[in-house]
Amino acid sequence: MAVDLTPDAAAQAVADRTRRFVRDTVLAVERARHGNAHSLPEQERLDLQAAARRAGVFAPHMPVAWGGLGIDRRGQALVFEEAGYSLFGPLALNIAAPDEGNMHLLERVATDEQQERFLRPLASGAVRSCFAMTEPAPGAGSDPAALATTATRVAGGWLLNGHKWFITGADGAAFAIVMARTSGAPGDRGGATMFLVDAGTPGMTLVRTIGTLDEAMAGGHAELRFDDCLVGDDAVLGEVDQGFVNAQVRLAPARLTHCMRWLGLARHAQDLALDRAADRHGFGARLADLGMIQQMLADNEIDLEASRALILRAAWELDDGGSGAQSTSIAKTFVAEAVWRIVDRALQVCGSLGVSDDIMLGRYLREVRPFRIYDGPSETHRWVISRRAVKRRAAERAS
Amino acid sequence: MAVDLTPDAAAQAVADRTRRFVRDTVLAVERARHGNAHSLPEQERLDLQAAARRAGVFAPHMPVAWGGLGIDRRGQALVFEEAGYSLFGPLALNIAAPDEGNMHLLERVATDEQQERFLRPLASGAVRSCFAMTEPAPGAGSDPAALATTATRVAGGWLLNGHKWFITGADGAAFAIVMARTSGAPGDRGGATMFLVDAGTPGMTLVRTIGTLDEAMAGGHAELRFDDCLVGDDAVLGEVDQGFVNAQVRLAPARLTHCMRWLGLARHAQDLALDRAADRHGFGARLADLGMIQQMLADNEIDLEASRALILRAAWELDDGGSGAQSTSIAKTFVAEAVWRIVDRALQVCGSLGVSDDIMLGRYLREVRPFRIYDGPSETHRWVISRRAVKRRAAERAS
Amino acid sequence: MAVDLTPDAAAQAVADRTRRFVRDTVLAVERARHGNAHSLPEQERLDLQAAARRAGVFAPHMPVAWGGLGIDRRGQALVFEEAGYSLFGPLALNIAAPDEGNMHLLERVATDEQQERFLRPLASGAVRSCFAMTEPAPGAGSDPAALATTATRVAGGWLLNGHKWFITGADGAAFAIVMARTSGAPGDRGGATMFLVDAGTPGMTLVRTIGTLDEAMAGGHAELRFDDCLVGDDAVLGEVDQGFVNAQVRLAPARLTHCMRWLGLARHAQDLALDRAADRHGFGARLADLGMIQQMLADNEIDLEASRALILRAAWELDDGGSGAQSTSIAKTFVAEAVWRIVDRALQVCGSLGVSDDIMLGRYLREVRPFRIYDGPSETHRWVISRRAVKRRAAERAS
Amino acid sequence: MAVDLTPDAAAQAVADRTRRFVRDTVLAVERARHGNAHSLPEQERLDLQAAARRAGVFAPHMPVAWGGLGIDRRGQALVFEEAGYSLFGPLALNIAAPDEGNMHLLERVATDEQQERFLRPLASGAVRSCFAMTEPAPGAGSDPAALATTATRVAGGWLLNGHKWFITGADGAAFAIVMARTSGAPGDRGGATMFLVDAGTPGMTLVRTIGTLDEAMAGGHAELRFDDCLVGDDAVLGEVDQGFVNAQVRLAPARLTHCMRWLGLARHAQDLALDRAADRHGFGARLADLGMIQQMLADNEIDLEASRALILRAAWELDDGGSGAQSTSIAKTFVAEAVWRIVDRALQVCGSLGVSDDIMLGRYLREVRPFRIYDGPSETHRWVISRRAVKRRAAERAS
Repeated sequence: MAVDLTPDAAAQAVADRTRRFVRDTVLAVERARHGNAHSLPEQERLDLQAAARRAGVFAPHMPVAWGGLGIDRRGQALVFEEAGYSLFGPLALNIAAPDEGNMHLLERVATDEQQERFLRPLASGAVRSCFAMTEPAPGAGSDPAALATTATRVAGGWLLNGHKWFITGADGAAFAIVMARTSGAPGDRGGATMFLVDAGTPGMTLVRTIGTLDEAMAGGHAELRFDDCLVGDDAVLGEVDQGFVNAQVRLAPARLTHCMRWLGLARHAQDLALDRAADRHGFGARLADLGMIQQMLADNEIDLEASRALILRAAWELDDGGSGAQSTSIAKTFVAEAVWRIVDRALQVCGSLGVSDDIMLGRYLREVRPFRIYDGPSETHRWVISRRAVKRRAAERAS
Repeated sequence: MAVDLTPDAAAQAVADRTRRFVRDTVLAVERARHGNAHSLPEQERLDLQAAARRAGVFAPHMPVAWGGLGIDRRGQALVFEEAGYSLFGPLALNIAAPDEGNMHLLERVATDEQQERFLRPLASGAVRSCFAMTEPAPGAGSDPAALATTATRVAGGWLLNGHKWFITGADGAAFAIVMARTSGAPGDRGGATMFLVDAGTPGMTLVRTIGTLDEAMAGGHAELRFDDCLVGDDAVLGEVDQGFVNAQVRLAPARLTHCMRWLGLARHAQDLALDRAADRHGFGARLADLGMIQQMLADNEIDLEASRALILRAAWELDDGGSGAQSTSIAKTFVAEAVWRIVDRALQVCGSLGVSDDIMLGRYLREVRPFRIYDGPSETHRWVISRRAVKRRAAERAS
Repeated sequence: MAVDLTPDAAAQAVADRTRRFVRDTVLAVERARHGNAHSLPEQERLDLQAAARRAGVFAPHMPVAWGGLGIDRRGQALVFEEAGYSLFGPLALNIAAPDEGNMHLLERVATDEQQERFLRPLASGAVRSCFAMTEPAPGAGSDPAALATTATRVAGGWLLNGHKWFITGADGAAFAIVMARTSGAPGDRGGATMFLVDAGTPGMTLVRTIGTLDEAMAGGHAELRFDDCLVGDDAVLGEVDQGFVNAQVRLAPARLTHCMRWLGLARHAQDLALDRAADRHGFGARLADLGMIQQMLADNEIDLEASRALILRAAWELDDGGSGAQSTSIAKTFVAEAVWRIVDRALQVCGSLGVSDDIMLGRYLREVRPFRIYDGPSETHRWVISRRAVKRRAAERAS
Repeated sequence: MAVDLTPDAAAQAVADRTRRFVRDTVLAVERARHGNAHSLPEQERLDLQAAARRAGVFAPHMPVAWGGLGIDRRGQALVFEEAGYSLFGPLALNIAAPDEGNMHLLERVATDEQQERFLRPLASGAVRSCFAMTEPAPGAGSDPAALATTATRVAGGWLLNGHKWFITGADGAAFAIVMARTSGAPGDRGGATMFLVDAGTPGMTLVRTIGTLDEAMAGGHAELRFDDCLVGDDAVLGEVDQGFVNAQVRLAPARLTHCMRWLGLARHAQDLALDRAADRHGFGARLADLGMIQQMLADNEIDLEASRALILRAAWELDDGGSGAQSTSIAKTFVAEAVWRIVDRALQVCGSLGVSDDIMLGRYLREVRPFRIYDGPSETHRWVISRRAVKRRAAERAS
């Protein structure tokens, strides 16, 4: 067996259908809403998903048993990139963050009862969800050990207390997966536990949705408070005190699917730049014939190819049973910065048109900026990447 | 006489007052409007200017005879940076683009009558203005030779016909300075002429204001049409066919004052990052004690200092009677990219807080992005910078 | 069939043997010569190759029929990287430039007689060769259309006239493959033809070897002159006037194997940095625990992974029968710049030790610098990459 | 008084003479030695200095009383840049490192007797000197607190013991200024003292000169050992235990004059690139008319201007009596990286010619690389720059 990069035919077919679906159906909705999904009416989301189902591209990542197309990570790299060509594509296919990561987590960690109750409607697109981990300073941010929200054992369940911040999709979510400390104290790692909390549970309050630079996540980013929020034992997702471990199940693939989706958007940005460069003239030449423009277009091509190659590498490792810890950190760090460069260059190529809302590049620039912060800022990833490299080399020298 | 970088005491005093004025008065308004001046009510603008007058910082750039403080370019570097610390500071001091550049142009090129009619109310802040040069493709953009709007000699004046795009401040402006072709054809340089056109002149239509990534310029950016718009001979600003030459009077200083203002905003971004780095802890340390954060903070300091030094160099040259062509191009190219890097790094240091509207960094990022395009994109400036360098060197070799 | 990145077991075994061979045998020779192969005695080269043969790693790229190990491009990516860990590894395995590319060219284009006479001794390592294409200004450099060396039909063969420059390996080569114009004139593409010219042929003169920043290519870089150099009809390699076409056979793979080799050297540089970071203390911590050092180490890891992924992508395409034109240009541009960054960062991590000859980083820095120029400078590759992107997009829009 | 950037006429005159002197006299020597001063015969150095004296440009930085031209830091910025246009210019003018910094230190800190004995011959160019501070790991490098060399009080003087590394100019120096610990232990700051040690003093051994990437410092970089090296009380330079404080006298200006000299070399590199771009054709155009080349040339111009402006800013501060701590750190960090970028781009513009020894760019690239490490690596400077910024901001917030 040698290395083979031939794409899986079934996944390629879904990717091709997704490409057409996005162009024929999704882009017009994105345009009409100027890419703002924070306030997208629920019915529009459901309509988009119904259209995706008709187009044969709905829930490509879920097993067939859960109503999906059963495409593995390598195949998802193809399909998610096509979906990500529009900000609304992932929503339409039901592969948007944070739902896509939550589905994966529930499928792997939840009990049968929890799966029926929470995963079933999530996989079908009937509801949305959120993942409540991040806290305002000095709580858990890049450093999960700072986790300050607590879950205290009481008769018949647990009492949640704490403050969450930047909880994507919380507004309108049917339920939240809440990370709370069940042992230890902020600053040491100790034990965390994940809880499934229905919307409307007394003591869980949506304080506000936070105005943000990006606006393409359904439900936006919200601040939540937990004040003696009581949940039953059946709310525990996975094992008590195993929250950090189980979060890993979600984290590595979730950061990789982010890369796949954003890569699609970056490709869209590059297409807009290529179109502009071909159409616009100045200084007696097409823009596409001017060296500095060519340099930006070529750098975009290089960044796109390198991003794609790193994503595929990590996806293969995950499919192959690897942890993907290092490869997804590397992919995430590179791709988050590459898509940022790509959209920025595309906007520069397009000049004042790129600044205007007449095309979507300004919106895209706003959307990709936070990716260098969400799912672990580049600095945190670089820290762990370097630590692993130092360890690997120490082992080599010792051998 | 040796090099002396001691700031002028009078200018420094105005800068100090401006610093206090911005902190005490302007930032709250910026915050309340989240930095959006595209739709700032006229009365708020006038109130801010009245406050600036009371604070002794109004119109620092105008001669005393015109109601200003008579501060030269070197002194403006100090004052404008302080004003630019807030997006609304330049509006308050009546030194915002495009009015500031238009005042300079009118002062230098207009007849006495034109000055009384147009410069007087502009300098006092009673009205706003715009400068109508850029055109949609394939018209004048980075390459002015593509100018397609025409002015045709008719009995009693001129008929303007054409299409303008991205005319900053047009919505609400009392008059426009319109650049139109009076000889030659698009593609060759030929002759252009500037015309002063009152708002409401028949045949001049504001087609729309363009939605844009940035939103801090009063009146936003608009699309204008000229359809047999008749203006009198007294509308000619400067000489017929001397429009490109006279535009140079405006261009070099205008791009430099842009740098001064944006530098202030970049310093504000750095202050936000320094505050966050000092206050936020993670991984057992203050952010300010983590190497990768220190690197970003230090790079910001370096970029700020280099920007300031290049601005001062060009300002001195202008005060000294030089054209400033090369030095302002160099300053503009460097500063536009430096302020972008600075705000971007500051946002990264602040993490999700930086992405949120709880602080203004996301807004600042949006505002500084177009500066790499407005007033000549970086690529155009690099082109002329390299051409001048090649010529200079050729002359050296020949000597 | 889905994407599979599992390395071929046979190639992996050769790579593992190569890794040991380089560490056990090659590095000491590199050290003794401080990486200078320009003046490496022929016997040392032959000794290294004999050792490689004993280690079972000689000529991994050649078909078994030619005494090689028959490893395809994907496998070569593994083996060449291991060989490239030392500047002398490729020489030892007989996979150094330009011989490796010349072997490939001869195998694909030469007649049986030519193969016996030229390829046989080259594949066995008995002789070295060179490829004489580049000319001094204003001749063929980045732009092959400028080719000025001519071959004129005469009775019994061809007369070569012209001036070549930067001909790698010419000093000591048994023969040269010479590119000469057989139709058209400099500036238009016209027709070129390749000729096989034995060392010592009257009229072919080695003017000098050129002192260069890099010194690790056997034979260095030389200047050649052709003055009425007469060769027979059997010296024509491929078809008359098909030189540019046949050069493509060599160019795409040759630039890719360059990437593979340099990637190995970059990994070596990173290992030196990792060792130093682990061993050296300052400011109360190991270097490896300082954030700015971690950033450099992490960026090196990312650049290594992205380089490897792009190389593998292009290698697979070549094995799969594709032209590899775009993928090898992208890989070459990215990898040439990435290895430069990697070695530069490694040197910075090592501080004054890195500057000293006590370790090889200064030498490595010198060696990798020209790679951004050799085999097409980055600018030329970016030009073609952007052109292909514009064409691809135009086709998409038309469909 | 307002900002004035008009250069001092006297300094400008020396700069103009220096420019001619370098072109007429120095460049030929540099060329003949291919920029290698590590092994420059002493007589050639003395001949160059005699020529500089005849040209009226010798020792521009020294007071007239010491045989110099009495030019202040601002004027030195002009003159040193001109001298630095050639690697051998600073040697000729007697303003090369480390002598130039040592002269300044001796002038400020030494006793009259010490000045007569050490400064007199140094200022006249009769001898060279060195500054022995850096130590091999784990001793003093970027972190001076790690200082391990000790000076122990004994009857009649001090016993020096320790190991020094990378002592520039030690080979051939008439004396060394040695930094040794007189209180405290490695790791805490404690007290250091500077000693003046004549060459040939028993117990001071030159272990070896270290092979390095750079080769343009007279005497190269050496390793020294001190084994019970006895010096008298009159060897103490400054006060006992005040070594770190007095080192500051030397450090800030020394890193700035480094910037001035390297800036000259970078300008030379740019001139070579401009010449090549003007002369070489490809793809139907002059290189100077190709966009990607123009971008490199323009970026070089920008980097040159920004470097010059930051240097002048710091020079003025030093002349004005400021410590220059922050401004010289900022200048050093920026300029060290800028000159590296400039030479690298120039080499890229020149292609294979740039790689060759036919022009000096490869040599220049080697020379400027260590500047990012010498006199404090960029990382150390960024660390202190960020710390000062955090403190400055904290003070602002407190007010």
